[in-house]
Amino acid sequence: MSLKFINLTPEQQARITAARERVAALHQELPRNDLVVWTAGNVSERIPAQIGEPELFVIKPSGVSYDELSADNMVVCTLDGQKIEDGTSADLQPSSDTNAHAYVYRHMSGVGGVVHTHSPYATSWAARAEPIPCVLTMMADEFGGDIPVGPFALIGDDSIGRGLVQTLLSTRSRAVLMDRHGPFTVGTDARSAVKAAVLCEEVARTVHLARTHGRPERIDQHHIDSLYKRYQNVYGQKGNS
Amino acid sequence: MSLKFINLTPEQQARITAARERVAALHQELPRNDLVVWTAGNVSERIPAQIGEPELFVIKPSGVSYDELSADNMVVCTLDGQKIEDGTSADLQPSSDTNAHAYVYRHMSGVGGVVHTHSPYATSWAARAEPIPCVLTMMADEFGGDIPVGPFALIGDDSIGRGLVQTLLSTRSRAVLMDRHGPFTVGTDARSAVKAAVLCEEVARTVHLARTHGRPERIDQHHIDSLYKRYQNVYGQKGNS
Amino acid sequence: MSLKFINLTPEQQARITAARERVAALHQELPRNDLVVWTAGNVSERIPAQIGEPELFVIKPSGVSYDELSADNMVVCTLDGQKIEDGTSADLQPSSDTNAHAYVYRHMSGVGGVVHTHSPYATSWAARAEPIPCVLTMMADEFGGDIPVGPFALIGDDSIGRGLVQTLLSTRSRAVLMDRHGPFTVGTDARSAVKAAVLCEEVARTVHLARTHGRPERIDQHHIDSLYKRYQNVYGQKGNS
Amino acid sequence: MSLKFINLTPEQQARITAARERVAALHQELPRNDLVVWTAGNVSERIPAQIGEPELFVIKPSGVSYDELSADNMVVCTLDGQKIEDGTSADLQPSSDTNAHAYVYRHMSGVGGVVHTHSPYATSWAARAEPIPCVLTMMADEFGGDIPVGPFALIGDDSIGRGLVQTLLSTRSRAVLMDRHGPFTVGTDARSAVKAAVLCEEVARTVHLARTHGRPERIDQHHIDSLYKRYQNVYGQKGNS
Repeated sequence: MSLKFINLTPEQQARITAARERVAALHQELPRNDLVVWTAGNVSERIPAQIGEPELFVIKPSGVSYDELSADNMVVCTLDGQKIEDGTSADLQPSSDTNAHAYVYRHMSGVGGVVHTHSPYATSWAARAEPIPCVLTMMADEFGGDIPVGPFALIGDDSIGRGLVQTLLSTRSRAVLMDRHGPFTVGTDARSAVKAAVLCEEVARTVHLARTHGRPERIDQHHIDSLYKRYQNVYGQKGNS
Repeated sequence: MSLKFINLTPEQQARITAARERVAALHQELPRNDLVVWTAGNVSERIPAQIGEPELFVIKPSGVSYDELSADNMVVCTLDGQKIEDGTSADLQPSSDTNAHAYVYRHMSGVGGVVHTHSPYATSWAARAEPIPCVLTMMADEFGGDIPVGPFALIGDDSIGRGLVQTLLSTRSRAVLMDRHGPFTVGTDARSAVKAAVLCEEVARTVHLARTHGRPERIDQHHIDSLYKRYQNVYGQKGNS
Repeated sequence: MSLKFINLTPEQQARITAARERVAALHQELPRNDLVVWTAGNVSERIPAQIGEPELFVIKPSGVSYDELSADNMVVCTLDGQKIEDGTSADLQPSSDTNAHAYVYRHMSGVGGVVHTHSPYATSWAARAEPIPCVLTMMADEFGGDIPVGPFALIGDDSIGRGLVQTLLSTRSRAVLMDRHGPFTVGTDARSAVKAAVLCEEVARTVHLARTHGRPERIDQHHIDSLYKRYQNVYGQKGNS
Repeated sequence: MSLKFINLTPEQQARITAARERVAALHQELPRNDLVVWTAGNVSERIPAQIGEPELFVIKPSGVSYDELSADNMVVCTLDGQKIEDGTSADLQPSSDTNAHAYVYRHMSGVGGVVHTHSPYATSWAARAEPIPCVLTMMADEFGGDIPVGPFALIGDDSIGRGLVQTLLSTRSRAVLMDRHGPFTVGTDARSAVKAAVLCEEVARTVHLARTHGRPERIDQHHIDSLYKRYQNVYGQKGNS
């Protein structure tokens, strides 16, 4: 059965249009924060669905330059990673990482956004399959502890998605470093997943630098817990990430 | 007693408006100099007060993007860190670091500006709780010696402010590296505190690089004293920081 | 015999004009991706030739600032590296690396574009004459294995070109690190060679960082083969590099 | 005797105006190439003088932001480092490094431009008082060998200038790393001195990176000589630096 031509209510169509715009705009944060080069990296966001509506998400097209991304060329997929025609997108294939994103959306209903990059400092920890130790208050705030490593997995089937979900379920970190590959981050929406990708690279860089000239001491677990709890509840304006 | 609705003279209102503009503009120096990512970091400035006027300062709102900062959304607080309504600001909460800024203003009357960032090189020294040794003439010029480390302290009460003030009172450095947290800098106004934040990161980076391949030699104390004295008195145009 | 004044068909002239525009625009990717400073670095592209037409390529003029590069001041050369007059270019000498580019085009008919830079991380591996080991999936994708080192060679004759071709013929990597000099990359056209230059620097940087704190493990050869095969055939949109 | 009000011929005034414009514009290359932060760094250029005309040079004002630099606020000085009034400049003090520039112009008639920065990689070698070894062809091209270290010297008298000239006269390098201070570069004009400052930082960075994971081998002296001779005579367009 092909979902290629799918019936969408006007309400869902409107939600797709809004998500296309958000996701296209958020992609610009990736080169701006030096997380990607050329066409690497991708952001996706789940489309909120009513009962009876199909579950969908919006993602970057494969191999398209960041200069050329727009709401119109984002690709809409089902949670099986199949592209659907919603009447707007050009005839583009979705990101080659679409299967990994889809797997996360199928298995973690609280996840509304996923980001993948090869940001250099985070990827350098991934290359050594080494977790980033929680030695900074900003790590405790955002990630609630160490940033863990996920298994080595090849692209093309559900291996990456499975490794990602297993690792995410064993930690409160919103970032995972996939072995010899790079970081994935999740959030309640695409914006919070992008924020986690930016902060993941920032702490990867700062702890890399700190480690060059010594061994920074891990923050005590009860302090980490206290910082994490506060930041998740108090920081920012209400309803803002 | 709530200071939320406070009577301001037209003169003080004018000084607040000017400080809002200066502080909003100076915030742009933080991302421009790679000192912050996302919404991290904050700049504040004390409002000069006449006898009988309330003591106030202007600070960044919490969790707002640098692209969206403007004179209008800066927040005005008392030296107890309580937000006041001055008729201009949107309904925004002040920076989560407001208590630390307020504590400094209460206890150091010569301080007119405070800056906090997680700039990566300075924070990497902070992660190791290691002072930056004075091995460069530009460090002697600006900081008059080593950049010291302040204690580990949790956000939420006066701990950070107290650690900051204790450390600042024991040094002539205008920068302090808070243990496993990041740098705070002070100045006679917000602009000089921002300058110190920029130079703190620059010397943190350069000494980090120097240390990678050897041990740079500390400058003799009398040379440091001579450089510091000259720079604080001769450099720049009169009345300029 | 001088080829300086050469007869060009209108069709070939049109292909030259298009290549001038592409190559001038692609040069902007070099400073944008921090691969070059000042006037260093160069991109060239082969002009497709019909039977009976002269074989030509377009390359950067020597010592001209990136701000001043335009389609008009690109230089057209024969495969012997001799500049020809095609009625458009200003009186500029071609890049001092023209001989190396020409040698590659003469000896590798599948190469349609060549890029040379002194990008700092790739050049740091070249300074040690050390290949970059394939420890990242993105290296396997793009380069199909380690990035090899070519011999030390002086500019001025065919030494660089010869060393480059010998090394390229012994590997499937599209990048070569010339000993104590810097990276050269090739592609089916100038755009794919620029992409390889950008990714060469990115993997040089990431593996440099990874190596700082340990020894990342090389990916198994059969996984590298599988990733390389997939990426060369599946990634991106059809007909896109 | 004060040279403050000096008689200038219209021809010399025209040369001053042109130099002011060149020097103001070249200052923008310093932040653009990440060689300076805040108001640090300075560029100067000698004004060509006819017999009987005073010897002058143009330099940055002290402590003025790069955003505010223009032809009009550059400062004109005699070779004793005294500011003159030429009817154009605002009432600004010249750079605090003016004495060092003046000393070089007095003692090296072939020098037409001087640049000083605290660019981080070059300054990190200066902090260790360690010359940069010539392990890259681009170093041989531009500097003709190692980049040497000059003595530790305090600002305020001729110490820096004297150390600089002594070191420059003992090498063919156009760059010198002043001990625990930073790089100075010279050229036939301000543009070539800025080029040397940019390339000094680039090779300082690349050799720093190379050294992190091993010991790059110095290029043989006869190869260095051959590369240097070629680059100084053949590279670029005629009359271009």
